[in-house]
Amino acid sequence: MVRYKLILEYDGADFVGWQRQENGLSIQEAVERAVKAFCGETVSAHAAGRTDSGVHALAMAAHVELEKDWRPDVVRDALNQHLRPAPIVILAAERVADDFHARFSCVGRAYEYRLVNRRTPLALDRGRAWRVSSRLDAETMDNAAQVLLGKHDFTTFRSAKCQSETPVKTLNEISVLRLGEDIYIRCAARSFLHNQVRSFVGSLVEVGKGKWRARDLKAALEAADRARCGPVAPPDGLYFLRADY
Amino acid sequence: MVRYKLILEYDGADFVGWQRQENGLSIQEAVERAVKAFCGETVSAHAAGRTDSGVHALAMAAHVELEKDWRPDVVRDALNQHLRPAPIVILAAERVADDFHARFSCVGRAYEYRLVNRRTPLALDRGRAWRVSSRLDAETMDNAAQVLLGKHDFTTFRSAKCQSETPVKTLNEISVLRLGEDIYIRCAARSFLHNQVRSFVGSLVEVGKGKWRARDLKAALEAADRARCGPVAPPDGLYFLRADY
Repeated sequence: MVRYKLILEYDGADFVGWQRQENGLSIQEAVERAVKAFCGETVSAHAAGRTDSGVHALAMAAHVELEKDWRPDVVRDALNQHLRPAPIVILAAERVADDFHARFSCVGRAYEYRLVNRRTPLALDRGRAWRVSSRLDAETMDNAAQVLLGKHDFTTFRSAKCQSETPVKTLNEISVLRLGEDIYIRCAARSFLHNQVRSFVGSLVEVGKGKWRARDLKAALEAADRARCGPVAPPDGLYFLRADY
Repeated sequence: MVRYKLILEYDGADFVGWQRQENGLSIQEAVERAVKAFCGETVSAHAAGRTDSGVHALAMAAHVELEKDWRPDVVRDALNQHLRPAPIVILAAERVADDFHARFSCVGRAYEYRLVNRRTPLALDRGRAWRVSSRLDAETMDNAAQVLLGKHDFTTFRSAKCQSETPVKTLNEISVLRLGEDIYIRCAARSFLHNQVRSFVGSLVEVGKGKWRARDLKAALEAADRARCGPVAPPDGLYFLRADY
């Protein structure tokens, strides 16, 4: 058996998320079907992050195990051929050691959340960003966000459906940057809780609107109480950015 | 009667282009229908550029004339409401003088063409950019492009369907810039011939691949012969960027 690491780009809008579900097509199932169509094998695809429905990836890492030792570029191109017309693309494939696991070997994950801060709806970025019409102060958001850095009990920013054994995680990086009407929020950590980034973003938007002060964000974090989270941001603006090994 | 200038963003993928056609929905018709739904009036919408099917706009200028003197933000918000769910958005509306004409008063137009230069297909930018898999040398493209600047007979870069009275136009600006795997080509002129930007882009890609030298581009221009144009670039990557008055 040969294990391949895959780097995927996808538009998550029309999928139920990464993970197989009864109620619709998942990215995982689409990739597994493409493998089946390519070489006839029934495989399990494992990813670094199990993105929710509507969440996108610029560079998700995943792995599959195949019986035959194909050249990695053959695997990449063949899977892309069989993935069409789904908006899922294998950007790269490489052979990895048998003990490599896209999820369990991953030591760092990064997400980007994209906001468009304007009055009018989105035409070109529909489903690709969250449009917020109230004027947001991105610098204040960036300053306030730094309180989230480091090791904390992130219960406030954790979905009730989260399956992580512990709510304690270490956030290594968070930044909020405005470029014109676009605001980019980037987060990096070894791992994230379910809905953690979207919960951060929703709460930071309260700060950006001036409804919350930095100290309110700090108090919400310290309360370790889900009820203290701001409105969870929609999946549309969330992109899985990078997996480190 | 009150005349309103509108600035529009749209995703042209599912439209037959700006102009009304028998064979499908145009941006123009969608806007005119929204006006009808808003105030019951049958109007003609005029645009600075009549983009082709599949071509997008980041800020197209257009005008409509209404009987009642509505506040511009009411016009903008009401049209946006009625345009939904079409991927067409009015970014701004303002009252203009009766002699303002989005097409005939326009003294400058700018387009951007977006290429993604990579081996693998596009997932997130499908329909929004032209993927070119051969490695392109953007700096060589930028240098070569400068030969197109100024006043020329652009017959080589003009569609057979072009209705302009003359093939002589003045190109004020052209630039090719690489940012990672993305390449942006920007052009500005008082006006353009039909398919002129896509013809430039297709020919510049030949230069970027090394198939053409700068002197081949110059010779193609000077030949004033449509047969000397490179393959015309697809509409997917083209964006109407700006109209100046």
